[in-house]
Amino acid sequence: MSRHLTVPEGFRSAGVACGIKASGKEDLALLAGQGRLSAAMVTTRNQIVGAPVQYCRSVLPKGCGKVRGVVINAGNSNVCTGKAGLKDAERMARLAAEGIGCEPTEVLVASTGIIGHRLPMDRVRAGIADAADRLGRRDDGAFLRAIMTTDTREKSAVVQTRLHGRAVTLAGVVKGSGMIAPSMATMIAVLTTDAAVSPSLLGRALREATDPTFNAITVDSDTSTSDTVFLLASGAAGHRPLKPSTPAWSQFTRALREACDALAREVVRDGEGATRLIEVCVRNAASTADARAAAMSVANSPLVKTAVHGADPNWGRIAMALGKSSARVVAEKLTVRIAGQKVFARGQGARFDPDAVSTAMQNETVRIDCSLGLGKASFTALTCDLTREYITINADYHT
Amino acid sequence: MSRHLTVPEGFRSAGVACGIKASGKEDLALLAGQGRLSAAMVTTRNQIVGAPVQYCRSVLPKGCGKVRGVVINAGNSNVCTGKAGLKDAERMARLAAEGIGCEPTEVLVASTGIIGHRLPMDRVRAGIADAADRLGRRDDGAFLRAIMTTDTREKSAVVQTRLHGRAVTLAGVVKGSGMIAPSMATMIAVLTTDAAVSPSLLGRALREATDPTFNAITVDSDTSTSDTVFLLASGAAGHRPLKPSTPAWSQFTRALREACDALAREVVRDGEGATRLIEVCVRNAASTADARAAAMSVANSPLVKTAVHGADPNWGRIAMALGKSSARVVAEKLTVRIAGQKVFARGQGARFDPDAVSTAMQNETVRIDCSLGLGKASFTALTCDLTREYITINADYHT
Repeated sequence: MSRHLTVPEGFRSAGVACGIKASGKEDLALLAGQGRLSAAMVTTRNQIVGAPVQYCRSVLPKGCGKVRGVVINAGNSNVCTGKAGLKDAERMARLAAEGIGCEPTEVLVASTGIIGHRLPMDRVRAGIADAADRLGRRDDGAFLRAIMTTDTREKSAVVQTRLHGRAVTLAGVVKGSGMIAPSMATMIAVLTTDAAVSPSLLGRALREATDPTFNAITVDSDTSTSDTVFLLASGAAGHRPLKPSTPAWSQFTRALREACDALAREVVRDGEGATRLIEVCVRNAASTADARAAAMSVANSPLVKTAVHGADPNWGRIAMALGKSSARVVAEKLTVRIAGQKVFARGQGARFDPDAVSTAMQNETVRIDCSLGLGKASFTALTCDLTREYITINADYHT
Repeated sequence: MSRHLTVPEGFRSAGVACGIKASGKEDLALLAGQGRLSAAMVTTRNQIVGAPVQYCRSVLPKGCGKVRGVVINAGNSNVCTGKAGLKDAERMARLAAEGIGCEPTEVLVASTGIIGHRLPMDRVRAGIADAADRLGRRDDGAFLRAIMTTDTREKSAVVQTRLHGRAVTLAGVVKGSGMIAPSMATMIAVLTTDAAVSPSLLGRALREATDPTFNAITVDSDTSTSDTVFLLASGAAGHRPLKPSTPAWSQFTRALREACDALAREVVRDGEGATRLIEVCVRNAASTADARAAAMSVANSPLVKTAVHGADPNWGRIAMALGKSSARVVAEKLTVRIAGQKVFARGQGARFDPDAVSTAMQNETVRIDCSLGLGKASFTALTCDLTREYITINADYHT
């Protein structure tokens, strides 16, 4: 099955090359609803944000509303481009609205790529016109390729569920973790569904779904100025609109979280230079905030990430990373397992076969379980190992 | 001039090899005052701390007091070794006290090296006896070599000043930033002075001096379980004891800060895999907490550190790192300079010659100035670039 945004009913998409990328690859993506769409959005928490993020926040001040489409370009992130850059983002929306046949305020905009440079608006204009001509139900992956920068693989997910007796589909694509110099590890995700959900409920569902998924991943602890997730619902599945606290609502939010989780994992797997995915599961923390802080501290520790790269069952670095976090940690109550094997308990190293654990750490996914023994809260963070290739990608480049 | 701990009057030291390090190099260091010494100590903020840190906190619960000596071993950090490890630290103090001729509670203890292994106490006992025999005023660097692990250079500093008409000397040695697997980038510093200062004032002076020096450096954002700084004052310079808020007090604290700053810079210069020292100066922040958070966010950003390694004047990554910090940052008020050259102002990139800035970034020290335009507070963080060699040191090793 093709895994693209037009798998759910009610969407058309296109991706074209208009010359923003020097490589000549696809760099302009357009998505349109057949009718108006419920829309929800979450954006970066960085205080310095790109012009497209500023534009989208002005269109959807509460993070949700009704829209008709989305236009995205890759190759230039339109970040730190001043007032002129903001005007360029508005123009992108206007041009896309003309192509789709709607109001400019019904179009969301995202950009990813090099920062600090004005968009080549002549090319963008031609690209949007071309993409509008090609909008269709069949997507051979051009939309996704047109939002990618140095991603090494196409990252998408489709989840199906049933709501009120109707088959409902969620589809998502994501770019991120590759770098285009001198940019940051920007992430942009677009999800579509044919479920019938009001904008405000869609916003709530998206916020809840991103917290344990997109907001639980880290490649290098750096936060992009462009991070954006869009979720669009067409209602074409034809069921009655979802209401919270119903079985259908649970069904939908579970499916959404599954789709976000699949996409977030893909981002980490494609992390710059990554060879392994690391799951850091913290349990029995005193609070959820503690569980998150402890898990993220381990997931962001360069010493833990290099140890996993070297397949070294180095529990000392894990204990160190837990201890330096803002979470309450007591060495005597802490238990650490690597790949299921207990390596630390009661304040000191446990007996284990280091060769066996090292072998297990050469799997594509390495799980680190930390039980803090202080409460009932838990959180799982996802990251990747830290490799020479990360340095090569990020140092051997000139802006 | 020899730059060792016995340059100030009133101290004897020794360093010997007792077989804790597999290399056979010096691994046991002993320092003794000719009389009782004012002592001050700051230790790691990590919640998981080694047995020597626990022991020293029990001896100096307020971080200051009177002692007679210090014993330190390298090659084994005595961290996560349970109650037996704590007993080993106490035994080290007792053995050193016998050698020096004082009470066990008058000896401070530190250990650095591999974690999770019991100390070889037979060798430690023989080493302490040997070192006690060799205690002397002439130090050929054996004390410093005996606290080093994978440090690539000997790091020491001597500062001289005059207090109440008397010549006063401060000397310091530090180890850190090299790694001994599977340990962390532990830092241990010992400073001596012949100034006459009460323990509580010495504690205050040390806390004030470490904040902008040792607590302002970061190699890889990971905090050791063993970090310890000792400051010992013999009073042998013979001036009348220092009182706060006097010219002599300012003179002393300035000299102390200078010594700590010199040692802290040495640690960063010897950071794992480092080829460059990076000074991140944040000014005009809304508060000191903001200035520190902003500077540390830039100093800890792997994307900034790899860009400096690549001599790439990538202001986008600096803006990103400021924006993601907890400090208040407004793009339009921000000015960024790299090596003195304005690269970002008024929300966008400034005009500059990238080749000239790149050339300046190939100096041994690279300065990044960030003016936030929101207040008057400032803070300078020190870090090093992030290189393939860092990964090699920390991944290509098996515990």
